[in-house]
Amino acid sequence: MTAARHYSEALGTLKEMVLRMGGLAEQMVHLSVTALAERNGELLTGVRPMETQVNRLHVDIDEMCLEMIALRQPAGGDLRFIAAAMKINTDLERIADQAVNIARRAETLLSVPPLKPLIDIPHMARIADEMLKNALDAFVDGDDALATTTIVRDDEVDQLKDQVFRELLTYMMSDPTTIPRAMELILVSRGLERIADHATNVCEDVIFMVQGKDVRHQGP
Amino acid sequence: MTAARHYSEALGTLKEMVLRMGGLAEQMVHLSVTALAERNGELLTGVRPMETQVNRLHVDIDEMCLEMIALRQPAGGDLRFIAAAMKINTDLERIADQAVNIARRAETLLSVPPLKPLIDIPHMARIADEMLKNALDAFVDGDDALATTTIVRDDEVDQLKDQVFRELLTYMMSDPTTIPRAMELILVSRGLERIADHATNVCEDVIFMVQGKDVRHQGP
Repeated sequence: MTAARHYSEALGTLKEMVLRMGGLAEQMVHLSVTALAERNGELLTGVRPMETQVNRLHVDIDEMCLEMIALRQPAGGDLRFIAAAMKINTDLERIADQAVNIARRAETLLSVPPLKPLIDIPHMARIADEMLKNALDAFVDGDDALATTTIVRDDEVDQLKDQVFRELLTYMMSDPTTIPRAMELILVSRGLERIADHATNVCEDVIFMVQGKDVRHQGP
Repeated sequence: MTAARHYSEALGTLKEMVLRMGGLAEQMVHLSVTALAERNGELLTGVRPMETQVNRLHVDIDEMCLEMIALRQPAGGDLRFIAAAMKINTDLERIADQAVNIARRAETLLSVPPLKPLIDIPHMARIADEMLKNALDAFVDGDDALATTTIVRDDEVDQLKDQVFRELLTYMMSDPTTIPRAMELILVSRGLERIADHATNVCEDVIFMVQGKDVRHQGP
């Protein structure tokens, strides 16, 4: 097998590992929020084993990236691809972390009566999930246009977070016994906001990878 | 000038840039929390201009790292150093982001009467600041022992965060008019917790850089 073939195989393997990690992170978020919204604690049992897999991939992807840089000495687009994979790796691990936090809060909330039917939180989770899916597709296909349109959706998530906050503040002010539950829900919505932020980071990394142009800190 | 001399100069410049960025992030956290604790809004005016500098460095450091990899094709310790610089760069930018959030909350809180004298929040900020200082020293000196002892302090910050949360929950439950202010303070303490988490990430990157060993996800 030629060195070039080896190299393109290694790039393919790296892509696959990032996708596998992204898929796990997505499922973890989905399970945690669905467990909370549908009050089905059984769904939470899947989250921990997935975290273990994510953590393993987190270490493996970094190792693979450094090895590829050291052995193949890539430049240009290939180097940007590997650098993007390293950064995306970090964001995916943090998304999984947030999912574990949400799962923990769900566990607490499922042990007490529901405060209210949840509408906005599952809605936030759906948008964050779509953002992450699109971000990963954009990475795999080198699709900077998709990455660009995905970033915009972060505002929807932020608005929903503010809405959740205002609504729960009203609950807390009118009935202090709701405070502990409302606090947990507020922190769940902040976790989802952070997940959307991480998906945004992934999109920015994809744009840099494709265009060789840093779009961070450009403001709206 | 020899290529080797050029290279070691470039490494020196990179180190300096990371340190400058770390120093700015540190000051931003310090100013925001001091403004809040001493109810001195003037201190907040320095935060925004520093954010602009941090964002500039964020982009420049990444660019410099990729350039060094592409042009010098480093391996071993040098490559790990550059990879660590890229990761630390991300964490420092997030710390600065958190400082800006805290400054915004401080502004809100300074426009209303104080809820209580703040003790634990400045205490959290001091520990987080020390962690960040140590993490940066560890990076510059390649001091994995310092990085290892610094990571342990993250637990102190987590405990203080829980303490702040419990105390403010009591305020909110006994007097609902305190809820909006208590919420802001809770979110400030979570910002500080995240800053300590980022300092921990920096330490883990330093250990990897020095030992070539990934210490993440090893549990306590």
